[in-house]
Amino acid sequence: MYEGVVQDLIDELGRLPGVGPKSAQRIAFHLLAADAADVKRLADVLTEVKSRVRFCRICGNVAQEELCRVCRDPRRDPSVICVVEESKDVVAIEKTREFRGRYHVLGGAISPMEGIGPDDLRMRELLSRLSDGQVTETIIATDPNLEGEATATYLARLLKPMGLKVTRLASGLPVGGDLEYADEVTLGRAFAGRRSLDG
Amino acid sequence: MYEGVVQDLIDELGRLPGVGPKSAQRIAFHLLAADAADVKRLADVLTEVKSRVRFCRICGNVAQEELCRVCRDPRRDPSVICVVEESKDVVAIEKTREFRGRYHVLGGAISPMEGIGPDDLRMRELLSRLSDGQVTETIIATDPNLEGEATATYLARLLKPMGLKVTRLASGLPVGGDLEYADEVTLGRAFAGRRSLDG
Repeated sequence: MYEGVVQDLIDELGRLPGVGPKSAQRIAFHLLAADAADVKRLADVLTEVKSRVRFCRICGNVAQEELCRVCRDPRRDPSVICVVEESKDVVAIEKTREFRGRYHVLGGAISPMEGIGPDDLRMRELLSRLSDGQVTETIIATDPNLEGEATATYLARLLKPMGLKVTRLASGLPVGGDLEYADEVTLGRAFAGRRSLDG
Repeated sequence: MYEGVVQDLIDELGRLPGVGPKSAQRIAFHLLAADAADVKRLADVLTEVKSRVRFCRICGNVAQEELCRVCRDPRRDPSVICVVEESKDVVAIEKTREFRGRYHVLGGAISPMEGIGPDDLRMRELLSRLSDGQVTETIIATDPNLEGEATATYLARLLKPMGLKVTRLASGLPVGGDLEYADEVTLGRAFAGRRSLDG
């Protein structure tokens, strides 16, 4: 145990995800030795982030204004909505520059293990967005894991009666990887989703 | 890239030791979703730690007053000084409750690779503490690695002319471990330091 505020700092850092007691201690001593200005910058940005960041009224993405950067952009195609679990998925997809539509951030995935059901996600907001007739395709880009697949299946059933195109991102071998290191489920998906190369 | 302050937070978190870009992002989103009060507590403790924490005038340990908790305690034996690299080593040794003397925190170890020489450590302060004639034994408890051993050797040579007892913590097999998993250097040390069991 350290004296007073040093232990407080280690305790607070240890509450962050992925930061164990040893890392918390290491980070605390790094901060103790760091320039006061650097530590102040971190403290300030923490305070600022809670007061300034909110979630986009339309899509649920992180935003600094009422609408997020994508929803504010008039050049984005409003007829295609890509449904993702988290804001970080938006960032990952934006990096590809492949998608010019809009997003819908669910805020997680269905997980009976963690007690997260459809009502805990932004499903209703998605349905109301889809009901205005402007959207023609919904791309489900939830994670390719158990929870993400369950969420995709649930969504596909929910959206089917609305008569719009519902697609799911392809599963398969990661580009640049070695076939022999692919797990069997991924390899199975790669077979099931194989494409013709002739003509 | 995220909008403004979210990216700032990820950047600041990513500067902490052991926090890569992915962890920084995960921590940032954890904080975005956390209670404002929790985040404020972290921000406050960061500000406080820089204004309140200093280093003990005598031993160099972290302290909230002019002297650290150990140096303030009149029951601690002033005739034995245990020399460690960092304040976290003090905490580790205090947990054992085996040591009732005082400490001296060097602030690191000699490392030509990182450009850290004896003058960058609190060696001079140690010599002046030892020159008052009250200290009879110096226990060198630097880390059992290359830098720690180099520092121990340097210190032993430096202190030899002063005619006081200089000891080094024992190296050997960790208690509770399996002999077969011990590395060869540790096993070699365990042989070299073997003790007689009879009588």
